[in-house]
Amino acid sequence: MTDLPERQERARAWFEELRDDLCAAFEALEDDCDPALYPGPPGRFERTPWTRGDGDDGGGVAGLLRGRFFEKAGVHVSTVSGQLSAEFAPSVRGAGPDRRFWASGISLICHPRNPHCPTGHMNTRFLVTNESWFGGGGDLTPMLDYQRTEKFLDARDFHAVWKEVCDPHGADYHAIYRKWCDDYFFLKHRDEPRGIGGIFFDHHNSGDWEKDFAFVQDVGRAFLDIYPKILRRHMATPWTPVERDEQLVRRGRYVEFNLLYDRGTLFGLKTGGNVDAILSSMPPEVKWP
Amino acid sequence: MTDLPERQERARAWFEELRDDLCAAFEALEDDCDPALYPGPPGRFERTPWTRGDGDDGGGVAGLLRGRFFEKAGVHVSTVSGQLSAEFAPSVRGAGPDRRFWASGISLICHPRNPHCPTGHMNTRFLVTNESWFGGGGDLTPMLDYQRTEKFLDARDFHAVWKEVCDPHGADYHAIYRKWCDDYFFLKHRDEPRGIGGIFFDHHNSGDWEKDFAFVQDVGRAFLDIYPKILRRHMATPWTPVERDEQLVRRGRYVEFNLLYDRGTLFGLKTGGNVDAILSSMPPEVKWP
Repeated sequence: MTDLPERQERARAWFEELRDDLCAAFEALEDDCDPALYPGPPGRFERTPWTRGDGDDGGGVAGLLRGRFFEKAGVHVSTVSGQLSAEFAPSVRGAGPDRRFWASGISLICHPRNPHCPTGHMNTRFLVTNESWFGGGGDLTPMLDYQRTEKFLDARDFHAVWKEVCDPHGADYHAIYRKWCDDYFFLKHRDEPRGIGGIFFDHHNSGDWEKDFAFVQDVGRAFLDIYPKILRRHMATPWTPVERDEQLVRRGRYVEFNLLYDRGTLFGLKTGGNVDAILSSMPPEVKWP
Repeated sequence: MTDLPERQERARAWFEELRDDLCAAFEALEDDCDPALYPGPPGRFERTPWTRGDGDDGGGVAGLLRGRFFEKAGVHVSTVSGQLSAEFAPSVRGAGPDRRFWASGISLICHPRNPHCPTGHMNTRFLVTNESWFGGGGDLTPMLDYQRTEKFLDARDFHAVWKEVCDPHGADYHAIYRKWCDDYFFLKHRDEPRGIGGIFFDHHNSGDWEKDFAFVQDVGRAFLDIYPKILRRHMATPWTPVERDEQLVRRGRYVEFNLLYDRGTLFGLKTGGNVDAILSSMPPEVKWP
């Protein structure tokens, strides 16, 4: 594993490069939207660095935009290391008796103001214990009922992109990772999906690191391409108060998912993580009527 | 235990009587508030009966008011029986191999529109397995920082009432049940209390059922007395948009508590309970800015 430090460095650099590209694409939406529909100045990401513990265990940069097109968008990168807690270690692949780990990744969640523009979520990460692997995925949560079907153009395009990304890397990747996404982003208590899906994967290690890294880069690039396209498709569509209400209620489901089921959120909150960064994924305004 | 059926019937009847008195007190607030500050017609409780399973296992009545003074208020009674699930039974006191249980109770949560009026929560219940006991409590969650201190008049009055209720029944009740409340209604991930406390108790069984029932009745009557008094104290106070925002953010903490920590909510949602009734406790409008 003499290549490992170089691989960690390349993964970290990629996640940060992707972060810059995503932030630029989202800021372009802030610039390009119609001021008649979206009053106020175009929003910009504010980047807040943070460190883990005393700083020897790495840290990250929380990027948050509160804008006119995006009511709230968070794009975070972090590269952390240290020892897993004794309680948590048994559930982490490859964690040895020393419980050492290293992790670098990017995570993104966008809540557009326009109810016709779906909420987007993407994350990818590289993890190292005594083993190493990639994890992540991308999924779409349309707010309005008429968009929450596989037949709607956005859903068709979104799924087509993931199939295109997956197929060259592994013939069964798309079927497996799409189902994983459907299973994971599901509100059991309401027997309803969070959104229209996408892909979700973990412990991705084919034995060929270069190939796996290329896959994860393709996942990031695909999201960078398709999500702004879908947003631009609807950004000029005006909305009614009734549609706004439907959006705010739908966002409540998003909150329910994140606080009841999302493993990353729950793990972070219950182990003393950075509350503000973890909960930056929460929608800015929500209704339970 | 030949008295048990009579006790169950008396408990059920009491919870329903208390429900009627609370609903009447809250509807009076809807009538008495200043229409200049609270536009629209006075709200009334809508009662929706529901049954558990095929109806042989009891049911309840969900009471929900969406009004001008109360943005949302829920007062629910239920009397259910049956068999605990095999997974849940080990955590329930006195559940025998047959896992039979019976439970009757009232639960209440009120979200006033005025940020100066605190959110209120109360519940009491009588549980029967191979043992029997009372549980419940009442607590107050002021929305605005200036009210969230023990020194504020509301908090002083609220705690004084519980001390008055507890002391005649047991010299140590108030100290124990107040601390239990503080410990329970605490957001560990933010290291902050949900509100200013009150009392919280479970497995309350002194060996003298009449005495315990009298205590639980006193708890209900005390809440019926003090909470509307506190609301009337602030109902004529106008509020600013900044105060409204502080309220909406504070309500986010309430959501976080209910979905991350509240045992009743989590148990209900994860075991196929009535989602609408369980989540009727969610605040009507919330912000995570």
